[in-house]
Amino acid sequence: MKKLKIRTSKRNDFVDITKDIEKLIPSNFTGICYLFSTHTTGALTINENADPDVLLDINKHLNKLIPKNQDYFHHFEGNSDSHIKSSLMGFSEIVPIENSKLSLGIWQSIYFCEFDGPRDRSVLVQFIKENC
Amino acid sequence: MKKLKIRTSKRNDFVDITKDIEKLIPSNFTGICYLFSTHTTGALTINENADPDVLLDINKHLNKLIPKNQDYFHHFEGNSDSHIKSSLMGFSEIVPIENSKLSLGIWQSIYFCEFDGPRDRSVLVQFIKENC
Amino acid sequence: MKKLKIRTSKRNDFVDITKDIEKLIPSNFTGICYLFSTHTTGALTINENADPDVLLDINKHLNKLIPKNQDYFHHFEGNSDSHIKSSLMGFSEIVPIENSKLSLGIWQSIYFCEFDGPRDRSVLVQFIKENC
Repeated sequence: MKKLKIRTSKRNDFVDITKDIEKLIPSNFTGICYLFSTHTTGALTINENADPDVLLDINKHLNKLIPKNQDYFHHFEGNSDSHIKSSLMGFSEIVPIENSKLSLGIWQSIYFCEFDGPRDRSVLVQFIKENC
Repeated sequence: MKKLKIRTSKRNDFVDITKDIEKLIPSNFTGICYLFSTHTTGALTINENADPDVLLDINKHLNKLIPKNQDYFHHFEGNSDSHIKSSLMGFSEIVPIENSKLSLGIWQSIYFCEFDGPRDRSVLVQFIKENC
Repeated sequence: MKKLKIRTSKRNDFVDITKDIEKLIPSNFTGICYLFSTHTTGALTINENADPDVLLDINKHLNKLIPKNQDYFHHFEGNSDSHIKSSLMGFSEIVPIENSKLSLGIWQSIYFCEFDGPRDRSVLVQFIKENC
């Protein structure tokens, strides 16, 4: 199992980790790459890597749907919004790999989603060979 | 790795791909089937296959939560809603398989979620044997 | 393939199944644990296990975003909200395992998300060894 270290710089942020994952792929490998965020306020997703407005728009709309403060939020740390966003985005991603290359679509990158930064974050990375 | 081709017919659409996946399952196989959408405006989910109103209701409510237009959407293609919906639904599904049959619940089907169609779409399919 | 039986006690509920999963882990195992909810109104997620207000806040906010009743919900069972919440949370989780221990973050637990209970529920559990 490998571990990727990520330093985020804002409260809400999407960090492209595609190139970092690529460096970890074993040679002559076909199978899946499994990524896991070991946090409860930081998640993983895949989305567009061309126009940076896509990620900004996603961020703005998530903030609208899940505002930082609600009368009925009682969690003492004041970051219930970060926990909700993370569960909705999900803590793991799996990406297929063929001949040691990520089989991502042409517009896809893999992002760590920071919802309560800036912080030091970790993503666990495992590779599992296709076997049939 | 196998590839499933899907032609969607509306801007927002749920296409049941369960039977197409079943045809790809190897014989004498127990393990997992891993599905990956190679797009940023088309996702995957699982949901009910009995009353078609379930999928229509999901679609209507997603459209309410994530409308096509917002003052603060700046992505030049005008489909930020499609990107947001896709990240929330997720780009992969994994389904257990026992003795070459999908271990889906009685009401479950696997759907490709089109959020910016109609388009030609692809889903990558991998099978990984249970090994312990 | 193993099956975990869960009895939920409310319409909306998060049941911590981490300890139940731990009991199923094979000895001398490093790889992934794959969990699958065989339902369309019950899902899986990971989130904080320390302050119970986190789960209560998630539940309250999901109820606000996806209310039980909407004029445009036509599904005859009256639980379209449960189906929508489930697709957004997702029906599977994958957790890395190292030396037969779940590699969860210090604050993470695995939850079955009940969105139309109380009911008897099942989660399928598979283990797949890291093999490269």
